[in-house]
Amino acid sequence: MTKIKNAFYAQSGGVTAVINASACGVIETARAHRDRIGKVYAGRNGIIGALTEDLIDTSKESASAIAALKTTPSGAFGSCRYKLKSLEESRAQYERLINVFKAHNIGYFFYNGGGDSADTCLKISQLAKTTGYPIQAIHVPKTVDNDLPITDNCPGFGSVAKYIAVSTREASFDVASMALTSTKVFILEVMGRHAGWIAAAGGMASDPKTPIPIVILFPEITFDRKKFIKSVAEKIKRFGYCSVVVSEGVRAKDGRFLADQGLRDAFGHAQLGGVAPVVASIVKEDLGVKYHWAVADYLQRAARHIASRSDVEHAYATGVAAVEMALAGKNAVMPAIIRTSDQPYRWKIGEADLKRVANREKMMPRNFISADGFGITERCRRYLAPLIRGEDYPPYEKNGLPSYVRLKNIPVKKKLSEAFKV
Amino acid sequence: MTKIKNAFYAQSGGVTAVINASACGVIETARAHRDRIGKVYAGRNGIIGALTEDLIDTSKESASAIAALKTTPSGAFGSCRYKLKSLEESRAQYERLINVFKAHNIGYFFYNGGGDSADTCLKISQLAKTTGYPIQAIHVPKTVDNDLPITDNCPGFGSVAKYIAVSTREASFDVASMALTSTKVFILEVMGRHAGWIAAAGGMASDPKTPIPIVILFPEITFDRKKFIKSVAEKIKRFGYCSVVVSEGVRAKDGRFLADQGLRDAFGHAQLGGVAPVVASIVKEDLGVKYHWAVADYLQRAARHIASRSDVEHAYATGVAAVEMALAGKNAVMPAIIRTSDQPYRWKIGEADLKRVANREKMMPRNFISADGFGITERCRRYLAPLIRGEDYPPYEKNGLPSYVRLKNIPVKKKLSEAFKV
Repeated sequence: MTKIKNAFYAQSGGVTAVINASACGVIETARAHRDRIGKVYAGRNGIIGALTEDLIDTSKESASAIAALKTTPSGAFGSCRYKLKSLEESRAQYERLINVFKAHNIGYFFYNGGGDSADTCLKISQLAKTTGYPIQAIHVPKTVDNDLPITDNCPGFGSVAKYIAVSTREASFDVASMALTSTKVFILEVMGRHAGWIAAAGGMASDPKTPIPIVILFPEITFDRKKFIKSVAEKIKRFGYCSVVVSEGVRAKDGRFLADQGLRDAFGHAQLGGVAPVVASIVKEDLGVKYHWAVADYLQRAARHIASRSDVEHAYATGVAAVEMALAGKNAVMPAIIRTSDQPYRWKIGEADLKRVANREKMMPRNFISADGFGITERCRRYLAPLIRGEDYPPYEKNGLPSYVRLKNIPVKKKLSEAFKV
Repeated sequence: MTKIKNAFYAQSGGVTAVINASACGVIETARAHRDRIGKVYAGRNGIIGALTEDLIDTSKESASAIAALKTTPSGAFGSCRYKLKSLEESRAQYERLINVFKAHNIGYFFYNGGGDSADTCLKISQLAKTTGYPIQAIHVPKTVDNDLPITDNCPGFGSVAKYIAVSTREASFDVASMALTSTKVFILEVMGRHAGWIAAAGGMASDPKTPIPIVILFPEITFDRKKFIKSVAEKIKRFGYCSVVVSEGVRAKDGRFLADQGLRDAFGHAQLGGVAPVVASIVKEDLGVKYHWAVADYLQRAARHIASRSDVEHAYATGVAAVEMALAGKNAVMPAIIRTSDQPYRWKIGEADLKRVANREKMMPRNFISADGFGITERCRRYLAPLIRGEDYPPYEKNGLPSYVRLKNIPVKKKLSEAFKV
């Protein structure tokens, strides 16, 4: 066995505006250590690429293409929603992974994802012990949901938060202009099935210099129609209009998603998704005022054009640190962002034990949500502000579009004779 | 009567990311001609401000506040949806306007809006003849719908177009990453009830360097479910995914909006709006693939953070030209953008007769839409490219939010004893 080992890197789960910045950090740092790390092979579509021996040779990409990942949203190598079962349940999968790693001399495993992916990464890290094959598995944090424990925040979140804060401010300015004779309530649906971090970012649109009436509906707070309508009505009375930021994960008293309570098509079939139109119809029924609603969906997590600079820096730094940890001989760890000061914002990279990361969700602290349940507290603002601070614009082409890189993604020649079905 | 006259300026209809840039052009240019123009009084909430004598004294605003309008979306003085009837039908309204103009020594009337507002402006321009009160009415073009005649494009459109093009590219990168195990179709609903200009902008997301499979649903093309599904299926087969940009104005064969065909709430009430979920349910039913959908709504027209530079320049220049036309003694005209070259893009300001502008809609030329009805042609690209070219970022605050100005909007003291109900 040579001392130089190749590295495997893959992206997992919902992609973000800055996950490629982490990829850039991993690949650039690996390239700077050619004495220890041979090539970085990326899994096409996450762990599926490893299982099917569908590897991408990132060494075929130019330095400038890899650098351009820093300003390109989405997952450059493809992502997947695929969770490995336990070693006991799915021995064949793990044997296959070992075979692929062996065949391609892979000694470092970098997995870039959220909570589920941290679990996958942890399982891989245990292969060294259980199978004797020497592999170091390092998790690179990523999730717009911001729900990983230990790390102060998750790369990907800051940029969504900035997008939602900026968009809420802009749309609120719009509805304020229209309120006298037209729209009085604007409703923006945002992501966050379990935790209200993204919805909370909508609250940042309002500040002492630019007060905006905003009602936030958090998944953490059970929807109370009466209280909600009362709050909206009060704001309309005082400001002439009201903006509502609603998390897709808001639930009614019966525990069901509010989004599922509403829409049926002409044939009576339930319609998937869209809590915004449900809230809109409640506003219409109870207040009778004109409303508009928007659903940001993928736009929010892909919006590299308005990414937060601190988020990009976090994403890149965790990629760099992951490789450095691997070179330091670590296994089953994750670079975590440690905040050392709110103002001025100071942070460093710490090390989190993957066992303490996998399958744990960090919810919004209750003291981040205002007493009435419809807003954010000063504490929450102090937490969020540094994460949405700073812009990091991508380059633009002559035709007015952002110049996002598409890699060549040249496959590594397969070495195993048998295929593997996932 | 003094030679120095005051000016009235108001914003009308749906606001845009750059209508305030036109306001800035009007006010700054008026301020540069204090020998001819006294004060600029803005109507609070459009023409309603004139009718109710609710005028804002813009001279109370600092030069820097007025300059900041150039980077602030929405209507700084409030807008309205309110159309004046003909002189015959509504003499009292016109008499009231004359009384307000007289009381405040207003000799210049600048109205910033779309087709309906051009009609209002034209009616005001005729007051000079019909009532003998000397007033010059100049229309300042504005509409995200891009449907005013004569002018090459309408301030407000270029920025929406840029937002939709950028967002479509970003979301398409996202779905491409997810397509193997998750979302295969992404649907983005955009504005444009009558004309497909905004939907066309989605097509700009794809270009030879960055090909993206996009199916556009135009209001100009009757929705054909079979052909649509066939086109989407082909693109999924070839690229693994497909993006759909759908105009809110798309109609079914029976002439009804596609948006109105779908959703009912749990009680069977029809739901307002949202063609995206209707298209999503068609995709689900006919193809059975996973989809995501977004509705941009106000976000698209308020998105000053990604405004097109050429659009900002057009908006400001038409405001400047409106005042210059007034000073040149013109009445019943509108500054129009005249394109003199596609590449390099060159333009100048011309003069349009308001009679030829009011109540006429400029539709998308059929040769801007591809033969299959689902895409844009080279001709359309040549037209759109200069309008989305260049960025013009607003300043940002320390907390990560764009710094948008809010004017003091100090009212002018009322001079008329009687109130007027609108």
